[in-house]
Amino acid sequence: MTRSKVSPDGRIPDRDVAAKLVIVMVGLPARGKSYITKKLQRYLSWQQHRSRIFNVGNRRRIATGRKASVHPKLAPEPAHLDPPVEAASILLQGVRQADGSTRYLEPTALDLNEDGQKNQTAKEGMEDDNDQSAKFFDPKNEKAAAVREQVAMETLDELLDYLLLEGGHVGIFDATNSTIKRRQNIVQRIREREPKLGILFIESICKDPQVLEANMRLKLSGPDYRDKDPKKSLEDFKARVAAYESAYEPLGAYEEENDLQYIQMIDVGKKLVQNRLKGFLSGGISTYLTSFNLSPRQIWITRHGQSVDNELERGHCYGQALYSFITYKRQEWLIDQKDKLSKASFPPLPGDNTPPYPESNGDLDEKNFCVWTSMLRRSVETAEYFDADDDYDVKHWEMLNELNSGRLEGMTYAEIERDHPEEFKKRAEDKLNYIYPGVGGEGYLQVISRLRDMVREIERITDHVLIIGHRSVCRVLMAYFMHLTREDITDMDVPLGMLYAIEPKPYGIEFHAYRYNEEQRWFDELPNYRPQMVGGGLI
Amino acid sequence: MTRSKVSPDGRIPDRDVAAKLVIVMVGLPARGKSYITKKLQRYLSWQQHRSRIFNVGNRRRIATGRKASVHPKLAPEPAHLDPPVEAASILLQGVRQADGSTRYLEPTALDLNEDGQKNQTAKEGMEDDNDQSAKFFDPKNEKAAAVREQVAMETLDELLDYLLLEGGHVGIFDATNSTIKRRQNIVQRIREREPKLGILFIESICKDPQVLEANMRLKLSGPDYRDKDPKKSLEDFKARVAAYESAYEPLGAYEEENDLQYIQMIDVGKKLVQNRLKGFLSGGISTYLTSFNLSPRQIWITRHGQSVDNELERGHCYGQALYSFITYKRQEWLIDQKDKLSKASFPPLPGDNTPPYPESNGDLDEKNFCVWTSMLRRSVETAEYFDADDDYDVKHWEMLNELNSGRLEGMTYAEIERDHPEEFKKRAEDKLNYIYPGVGGEGYLQVISRLRDMVREIERITDHVLIIGHRSVCRVLMAYFMHLTREDITDMDVPLGMLYAIEPKPYGIEFHAYRYNEEQRWFDELPNYRPQMVGGGLI
Repeated sequence: MTRSKVSPDGRIPDRDVAAKLVIVMVGLPARGKSYITKKLQRYLSWQQHRSRIFNVGNRRRIATGRKASVHPKLAPEPAHLDPPVEAASILLQGVRQADGSTRYLEPTALDLNEDGQKNQTAKEGMEDDNDQSAKFFDPKNEKAAAVREQVAMETLDELLDYLLLEGGHVGIFDATNSTIKRRQNIVQRIREREPKLGILFIESICKDPQVLEANMRLKLSGPDYRDKDPKKSLEDFKARVAAYESAYEPLGAYEEENDLQYIQMIDVGKKLVQNRLKGFLSGGISTYLTSFNLSPRQIWITRHGQSVDNELERGHCYGQALYSFITYKRQEWLIDQKDKLSKASFPPLPGDNTPPYPESNGDLDEKNFCVWTSMLRRSVETAEYFDADDDYDVKHWEMLNELNSGRLEGMTYAEIERDHPEEFKKRAEDKLNYIYPGVGGEGYLQVISRLRDMVREIERITDHVLIIGHRSVCRVLMAYFMHLTREDITDMDVPLGMLYAIEPKPYGIEFHAYRYNEEQRWFDELPNYRPQMVGGGLI
Repeated sequence: MTRSKVSPDGRIPDRDVAAKLVIVMVGLPARGKSYITKKLQRYLSWQQHRSRIFNVGNRRRIATGRKASVHPKLAPEPAHLDPPVEAASILLQGVRQADGSTRYLEPTALDLNEDGQKNQTAKEGMEDDNDQSAKFFDPKNEKAAAVREQVAMETLDELLDYLLLEGGHVGIFDATNSTIKRRQNIVQRIREREPKLGILFIESICKDPQVLEANMRLKLSGPDYRDKDPKKSLEDFKARVAAYESAYEPLGAYEEENDLQYIQMIDVGKKLVQNRLKGFLSGGISTYLTSFNLSPRQIWITRHGQSVDNELERGHCYGQALYSFITYKRQEWLIDQKDKLSKASFPPLPGDNTPPYPESNGDLDEKNFCVWTSMLRRSVETAEYFDADDDYDVKHWEMLNELNSGRLEGMTYAEIERDHPEEFKKRAEDKLNYIYPGVGGEGYLQVISRLRDMVREIERITDHVLIIGHRSVCRVLMAYFMHLTREDITDMDVPLGMLYAIEPKPYGIEFHAYRYNEEQRWFDELPNYRPQMVGGGLI
């Protein structure tokens, strides 16, 4: 952590305009722009940067009097939560599935801001220009072009207001921005408002037919093509993309000659070009984007087995049950994936639920399973059964260690309240910013900072992973995947014996929760479980 | 830190072949390949990866019976050190300058291996193909081509022996490798020996005329063109490069189609392309290379002011003297640089000592000066005078904190020996691997690991920087810049009151040392100072 205005580890202060960043997306439809945008916003927000997506398509739909489209899989549910112990607010929109899992959708522009407030009910599918005819996007249609330009600039102004007047740190401008002319206008408008603001272009290009097919598969199951003839839909969509392609100018010489920062992603994570990146934030974003891969896999999170009162035996039982259950689930997942892939067709027929991943059957068999623990004994020991099995790759990480309580280490909260009432009070007032006194003492911001590399590593690998962590570490990791607000990070209820399964999907994550059944030495699924706030908020 | 075979933070164990890496350099002469190679090897070695450069040019000079060339600035001195307190071994070759400074040269292939042993006296200039006529490199000269190919493959075999038989982790194959055919042969040979070995191509391309001029400036002051007519030399060198260019095939479609990892650097740090990077090591190398910049600047390192026995007053005096001295030196540096630039000509005339940097006068004036301290009071307070001056940008970093001694924190070495003789003994036996017991306890490997981001940040910025650190932190940072062996890191003498100035140069670093003169409240330069081993090795 640093205390400074431009800092790799800390937050960007409101007054430091030069450290703020406008991210301008570039790319044709069905190139995963929105996927990148949403994931990036979630990452930035988790890293304590106030960030928001500004989507031109949504604004245009309103401007042209059209209702924003709704992806059937993303249909918003009433936002009521399961009765929580106390009020819990979850930023990701949970959609319950017939199988008891919950799909948490990435937040959408104009829909939710980084503080979790609902802005508008307008929702979008996976692409900003989904719902308007190809004619509207024909570069020869001058009137439409003027409307497009005006709406784009209005959206950009909103973004700039957010950064300059409302305390935002990073604004993401989500549109195709596919011509040099448009990008010139954007740069000019930003510099007119504030010449010091950082500008970073991020372009997504897909060349790999498998990646393109996966993107189109998602699109064809979307609102515009639902219940329509798959072949005709595919042709129609391709015509739509062609309208853009005719005028498309990728990032390159123009930006390079004008010393503009850019990142060009080719086939999501396979190839990446970065140009004239300046500043720690742009560098960090590039490193994060580099780590992306579209490999289907599961991320499991749990805490160590019981170790209170030296209940070693109970801890061992938990480790054993965990090993058996995960091994069962791993096999089940593989069979399920193969089954779906074997039934796949393209374009997808009705009922085709092929996972939209550009990966083949063969790769699934070779998928490793990593088990990561902290360096602390209770976490290491919970992994002992995995350690004895060559089909698991067990590692122990220092950065997964529990939040270090400095000189209060080893004390219960009750003892701290009794013996160090001042510290107890300070912590209760602001758990996120509180730092434990004494050598090595940490706070949640330190844990968030040290887990940044861990999250990049999780994103980078294509293997399944089980993380056997501790309360604060699980909270912070869950906060990343579930897009918790910064206030909720410190209060999420992550009891011993809970096991969470997260499966990254192009539209967000699929989430399952299981509870340890000590009697049966197995895990029971908790259908439609949502993370809850812990009682009292002091733990 | 992790304990595992493939680990982001730890070392690569000898047996883990799949985690080892062959780095294959690609690029025309005068594209800074050797600069990149040497810096990368120094970084990898500092990060505890056993790594070595294998240079084809040097081997060829021996094969063709020619003596390897010696750059006049790099002429090896007898390797005697200043009488040290105890024996000290420094990997960088120090060359004393008339002005009392010392030039430390990056280690060269065949010259020094990663353990600091001298291999051969052969030295090279900045480029492997410096000393042979353009005819030898003409692609139409078949006999020469056969010799070149044979020497290249022999060198590659040496590299593979190093990785597979001698416990090396990373071998860097330094040659132009400028055709697809050659690169195919390389890949084939590596896979024949061990299909699991990682292969990473790194290409350096220069398009910016200023970068090219800087590279050629260095070349023209080298052995082949010394005391020759500058204009003719430039023409001759350009003809030599043209011989390569005729057959040059940059990295691209071939490598992409064959799923080969590569990093392409364009104009050192301005633009970077990365393709299909796999594994943490390749990712880390890419992040490190991204941070490179050629901006001239100074890096200052010192410890905090006296704080023993609450000698606060002495600490304040040190902070004040440091501020005055640095401010003076900063001004002096600026005048000196401008003076050299104003006298510059290209091609360089005899006596032209223009620093070979592609930067103009204007940028020098805008150069910031960062002052970085730890979060500990004695470090923060030493920076107080800088903090009061708007011309300095002061930051406080947690990662600069002193090595955490866990539950032995605050004890003197004598007290540890008396009260914890077991710990004292363990530490004395292996200071590098020793970890202090108790919560938050660290060892040198942890400090090296947490300073990785700091070094990348130092490399990334173009500003001057003064680091006010602590003993272990200064040792580890100095070890990076001075290329200390891993054993020497923990024993380097960094007394309070010493101030080190490091100026990165294309051929290595320029190093100055100063000692605090308490009476005069100023600093005295120690001419030809070399880091020494601390007496007894226990501190």
